[in-house]
Amino acid sequence: MHSVGICGSDVHYWQHGRIGDFVVEKPMVLGHEASGTVIKVGSLVKHLKAGDRVAIEPGALREMDEFCKIGRYNLSPSIFFCATPPDDGNLCRFYKHNADFCYKLPDNVTFEEGALIEPLSVGIHACRRAGITLGNKVFVCGAGPIGLVTLIVAKAMGAAQVLVTDLSASRLSKAKEVGADIILQISKESPKEVASKVEGLLGCKPEVTIECTGAEPAIQSGIYATRSGGTLVLVGLGSEMTTVPLVHAAIREVDIKGVFRYCNTWPMAISMLASKSVNVMPLVTHRFPLEKALEAFETARKGLGLKVMLKCDPKDQNP
Amino acid sequence: MHSVGICGSDVHYWQHGRIGDFVVEKPMVLGHEASGTVIKVGSLVKHLKAGDRVAIEPGALREMDEFCKIGRYNLSPSIFFCATPPDDGNLCRFYKHNADFCYKLPDNVTFEEGALIEPLSVGIHACRRAGITLGNKVFVCGAGPIGLVTLIVAKAMGAAQVLVTDLSASRLSKAKEVGADIILQISKESPKEVASKVEGLLGCKPEVTIECTGAEPAIQSGIYATRSGGTLVLVGLGSEMTTVPLVHAAIREVDIKGVFRYCNTWPMAISMLASKSVNVMPLVTHRFPLEKALEAFETARKGLGLKVMLKCDPKDQNP
Amino acid sequence: MHSVGICGSDVHYWQHGRIGDFVVEKPMVLGHEASGTVIKVGSLVKHLKAGDRVAIEPGALREMDEFCKIGRYNLSPSIFFCATPPDDGNLCRFYKHNADFCYKLPDNVTFEEGALIEPLSVGIHACRRAGITLGNKVFVCGAGPIGLVTLIVAKAMGAAQVLVTDLSASRLSKAKEVGADIILQISKESPKEVASKVEGLLGCKPEVTIECTGAEPAIQSGIYATRSGGTLVLVGLGSEMTTVPLVHAAIREVDIKGVFRYCNTWPMAISMLASKSVNVMPLVTHRFPLEKALEAFETARKGLGLKVMLKCDPKDQNP
Amino acid sequence: MHSVGICGSDVHYWQHGRIGDFVVEKPMVLGHEASGTVIKVGSLVKHLKAGDRVAIEPGALREMDEFCKIGRYNLSPSIFFCATPPDDGNLCRFYKHNADFCYKLPDNVTFEEGALIEPLSVGIHACRRAGITLGNKVFVCGAGPIGLVTLIVAKAMGAAQVLVTDLSASRLSKAKEVGADIILQISKESPKEVASKVEGLLGCKPEVTIECTGAEPAIQSGIYATRSGGTLVLVGLGSEMTTVPLVHAAIREVDIKGVFRYCNTWPMAISMLASKSVNVMPLVTHRFPLEKALEAFETARKGLGLKVMLKCDPKDQNP
Ligand SMILES: NC(=O)c1ccc[n+]([C@@H]2O[C@H](COP(=O)([O-])OP(=O)(O)OC[C@H]3O[C@@H](n4cnc5c(N)ncnc54)[C@H](O)[C@@H]3O)[C@@H](O)[C@H]2O)c1
Ligand SMILES: NC(=O)c1ccc[n+]([C@@H]2O[C@H](COP(=O)([O-])OP(=O)(O)OC[C@H]3O[C@@H](n4cnc5c(N)ncnc54)[C@H](O)[C@@H]3O)[C@@H](O)[C@H]2O)c1
Ligand SMILES: NC(=O)c1ccc[n+]([C@@H]2O[C@H](COP(=O)([O-])OP(=O)(O)OC[C@H]3O[C@@H](n4cnc5c(N)ncnc54)[C@H](O)[C@@H]3O)[C@@H](O)[C@H]2O)c1
Ligand SMILES: NC(=O)c1ccc[n+]([C@@H]2O[C@H](COP(=O)([O-])OP(=O)(O)OC[C@H]3O[C@@H](n4cnc5c(N)ncnc54)[C@H](O)[C@@H]3O)[C@@H](O)[C@H]2O)c1
Ligand SMILES: [Zn+2]
Ligand SMILES: [Zn+2]
Ligand SMILES: [Zn+2]
Ligand SMILES: [Zn+2]
Repeated sequence: MHSVGICGSDVHYWQHGRIGDFVVEKPMVLGHEASGTVIKVGSLVKHLKAGDRVAIEPGALREMDEFCKIGRYNLSPSIFFCATPPDDGNLCRFYKHNADFCYKLPDNVTFEEGALIEPLSVGIHACRRAGITLGNKVFVCGAGPIGLVTLIVAKAMGAAQVLVTDLSASRLSKAKEVGADIILQISKESPKEVASKVEGLLGCKPEVTIECTGAEPAIQSGIYATRSGGTLVLVGLGSEMTTVPLVHAAIREVDIKGVFRYCNTWPMAISMLASKSVNVMPLVTHRFPLEKALEAFETARKGLGLKVMLKCDPKDQNP
Repeated sequence: MHSVGICGSDVHYWQHGRIGDFVVEKPMVLGHEASGTVIKVGSLVKHLKAGDRVAIEPGALREMDEFCKIGRYNLSPSIFFCATPPDDGNLCRFYKHNADFCYKLPDNVTFEEGALIEPLSVGIHACRRAGITLGNKVFVCGAGPIGLVTLIVAKAMGAAQVLVTDLSASRLSKAKEVGADIILQISKESPKEVASKVEGLLGCKPEVTIECTGAEPAIQSGIYATRSGGTLVLVGLGSEMTTVPLVHAAIREVDIKGVFRYCNTWPMAISMLASKSVNVMPLVTHRFPLEKALEAFETARKGLGLKVMLKCDPKDQNP
Repeated sequence: MHSVGICGSDVHYWQHGRIGDFVVEKPMVLGHEASGTVIKVGSLVKHLKAGDRVAIEPGALREMDEFCKIGRYNLSPSIFFCATPPDDGNLCRFYKHNADFCYKLPDNVTFEEGALIEPLSVGIHACRRAGITLGNKVFVCGAGPIGLVTLIVAKAMGAAQVLVTDLSASRLSKAKEVGADIILQISKESPKEVASKVEGLLGCKPEVTIECTGAEPAIQSGIYATRSGGTLVLVGLGSEMTTVPLVHAAIREVDIKGVFRYCNTWPMAISMLASKSVNVMPLVTHRFPLEKALEAFETARKGLGLKVMLKCDPKDQNP
Repeated sequence: MHSVGICGSDVHYWQHGRIGDFVVEKPMVLGHEASGTVIKVGSLVKHLKAGDRVAIEPGALREMDEFCKIGRYNLSPSIFFCATPPDDGNLCRFYKHNADFCYKLPDNVTFEEGALIEPLSVGIHACRRAGITLGNKVFVCGAGPIGLVTLIVAKAMGAAQVLVTDLSASRLSKAKEVGADIILQISKESPKEVASKVEGLLGCKPEVTIECTGAEPAIQSGIYATRSGGTLVLVGLGSEMTTVPLVHAAIREVDIKGVFRYCNTWPMAISMLASKSVNVMPLVTHRFPLEKALEAFETARKGLGLKVMLKCDPKDQNP
């Protein structure tokens, strides 16, 4: 492994030992945003060889089930997934992964870009499910790492204007830096008030809203804000039950679509990075050698900065 | 006018004078499920002439707005709609309607079938938005008129098995009569229990659930029941806020799509009726001459039978 | 193996030793429309056990490539395919196949129905790519086995009227028997004349045309006949170069889509057969025990009847 | 009117008096790429007022037919279209147009950008029908005005790499200037050779090919070049009959989709121009006052430069 990003879920498993029904019951290696160099390949592997630089898709199919056959392999219940118990992650020096889910990086894509394909993939999958197209106005709730990659992808897919909200002014200024057309800091507004501010700032209701906080008020504002016939994508994961103005969405045919990780995103992400069509490097705010993992995790836990990178190759700590 | 069906909304306006934000503020003619014979046409009308038998689409565009241009004219906020205040309906002898929304009936389609295209259209639009395709297992909540037309359309679109639930045994036996493969009477089960019974009866989770009750527990059971990657369509309209296991839908990518009336359904409904591919006549349980409208409305209000037809042509009271 | 149907391609390999670039270079077992009983399963197989009756999908993936990942595994260039050189088919007593592509048959689906899922799948894939929906008028060129399964599927997906053409009157009467609404025998008409007859008989241009002959005039008539904005699906495979009125399709936005075999069709076909929503049994016109394979192939070669079934289990020659 | 671009079809009508079945039978005003200032509006018009700067969509519906209702109004056979006989165009000082097809320009969009929305719309419609998405490799045949707008839109929709071909080196250097990643000058290569060069240069077959020449060899190379499961969009209009390797497209499921003008493009084009997400100004190579129309047409006829603009407002000849 060369570079491994720390994700909110890594911090959560570390602190709480569980996320929903996934419980850590024995020691588990963390990490699922990773890139590295191939050391050895199995005899059947044709597309990779030792020395190749690769990005790793952490979800790897264990069986060819109905979801795989229709191209939605992220929904396969038996999928292996790095750092989701009981499966080990790849925050370590050496790691073995299904070669079908390792993708060769071109020379002009760095290891850190390779590692960032994981969060970027969440944004790609969300924007793709939202059906973002040329000229769209898009409302993104939340300017955490996931809100930001969603913003970046929405712009790359042709959105004319993306408005991003957050509670934190510093996160919003980062959003501005990576391409937000409009930012809106939320404090005490009701969901309907937020929706009406969004409409005012964009000049019309957005065709697409992508919710990246998991907070109930944000989901509600997403329903109120979205244009009739548009789409609200739920990326943020909140509490089990949510109270929402469902009938308000229904009679305006605002579709509500969830996102579970991603599928079929690595090849297109690599193409975009190779052609310099997206720039994810501003997301990385901290770097630590693997030896300082604890310090790195503390930094992530405190919410300082955005993406903390662990550098696992003692001989090469470059991006 | 020849035949006009009574809809739940007609009864509701009659009894309560409002539905949500639509308030009856001056006398309003009821009725929006109608067919009749053309008496006169405007000079620009080419596709119709006096004497033609027609079915009437009650929603008629008032302007060529953005929703019309993209083919989703049901979402146009300025649309005229029969018997939605302040627009008058067509439960009367003579009525004038935008010719673009009057469709010629072939000789082998009866006036009552023509009137029933309105509720049938709700079922068509719901099944189309659900993306029902060959071999699907479909779960329909509710066996009222809307649940039944949805069932009929789902079968016609190739669903292999449709399971229908209701609280009422008599409604379920009607469902069986018009083609339900499996019926399930609901009493005190929790939403999760309903979902698990549905899975048991179908042998797997349904790809599609179509909710036709508006009841919160039914919506919840729809989310739990639907297969990962499937679709829950909301036809039933309930209270303003609804509490649902949204995250359960989101992480399994069960899309939640509402339905607001319909668009582009009359031509295909007429084709289906003309080719005898669907049979909606069992829905009609009562007929009254226009003079006995009050009695007809009382029958509808008491929930006796399913569809009550008013016969507006004193010289022809045939179906 | 229990029942194996003979396909045009089997006859072609037998007679000519090649189809296009696929050349038979060493002895090859024929047969790819098959069903049978499981004798033994590998240790990792969970969904099947000895004694299960199964239908066999002849295309089985050899690697998880880009086409597999997006759910279009039929396009995988390295796919194994029964009786396509150099891969052996399953017209034999005992045969070993990738368990992921063996599907358990319910008790109420016969072995012959199981074998017929193969040609039926071509029809399903064609109709699905055509986007057939409720009330469509559909034009099917050719009433060979493939034209007939396409007709059956189109009706099951809600087509209001299907018109089938062929050169042969006997094939057209079979089409009528399995559900064609309108049949049209072609002799010397030009493609434009055929298109105009189709429009006349259907009362309007069909939204969908499915070409199942491979003949250039039929493809041309398909372009002329299809309604603006509709779809022409090419199932029939003709000569390398074809002369067509492409601009006529282009400026009316008639999409031209090919079909290469199928993917994701066995589960839905089994659902349809189990619920008795489609009936493919009239396609079988001849049955021979495996010992009389030569006679069976001669029958197929002469074009007598439609589908010739070989019965491979000496103890059970039932359908 | 303020600015009106000259299109190939204008030159063609001027020189030949017809395009296909459209024959100029009486004097006809040319011009359909136009923008100007509103002088007067009808009493029912709400979204515009005198003084508004507007871009004009030249196709305006005459009736609410089936194509309009499904959102594909460009296919309406009775549509009015500027400068398509017998309908007059808008290359003149004062012109009257259906207000539903006049779109207000924001202050930061120039009149010439407004006029260029017309050719840009062809590119938008083509890329949208192609389904271009993030990371796609795209092959555009032809670097005329239409090839260039297609290139610009493909990049804006997230294409990672666009390769453009042409016979002319100067047109290709313009393509490079407006964003082509790779250019390829065609001379005597066979269609298969072109396809193989395209694959070599892109590193893989493109998912999408957009044909903007109408030349038979280019269409053929488009079929050979496109990746299995991809799409070939035909924008270029060639001769009536075309000889193509149709079976090669069919068995690889390369969809062939035509483009007839556009629909629903002005609003998104205005959003893109307003947010500076696309830059079409480099397309304008010549400007003439309306008085020098003949000189302007001669320039266009000789193929000097790309887009020739006529400036119809004697008081304002700015872009
Ligand atoms: N569906 C998936 O597959 C998937 C994958 C990754 C992450 N997620 C989820 O996405 C969400 C975002 O992830 P992240 O790493 O960016 O988290 P994060 O906690 O770093 O960011 C969330 C941001 O939302 C802001 N926020 C909270 N309430 C808000 C409100 N009412 N309006 C606007 N902003 C508000 C917070 O200030 C914070 O900046 C999390 O819920 C995470 O669990 C889902
Ligand atoms: N979205 C639209 O455009 C549209 C159009 C027409 C009707 N509707 C709505 O559709 C719904 C159905 O209309 P209808 O005319 O058939 O109404 P209805 O009242 O006749 O039927 C509803 C049925 O649902 C049953 N039901 C109630 N709770 C249930 C539960 N928990 N599980 C199963 N069944 C349950 C009832 O017993 C009843 O038979 C209504 O909410 C109506 O407002 C919506
Ligand atoms: N794309 C695929 O994956 C796929 C799969 C299976 C079969 N096929 C192809 O489908 C086609 C049909 O297969 P089949 O087994 O039914 O073949 P078949 O030869 O039995 O049937 C073809 C029928 O077309 C009729 N026909 C010929 N010219 C005609 C015309 N101009 N108009 C109307 N009818 C005409 C013939 O009389 C014949 O009945 C073949 O070309 C076959 O290669 C393709
Ligand atoms: N479908 C529609 O709605 C629509 C709308 C507008 C234009 N068009 C058509 O689009 C086409 C392009 O329009 P334009 O204005 O850009 O025309 P143009 O003539 O200016 O450009 C065509 C370009 O194609 C190049 N070319 C010719 N043969 C080639 C080949 N084999 N390979 C590569 N390049 C080749 C030419 O050198 C030229 O530069 C025309 O056919 C036009 O009729 C269609
Ligand atoms: Zn993560
Ligand atoms: Zn109603
Ligand atoms: Zn076959
Ligand atoms: Zn033009």
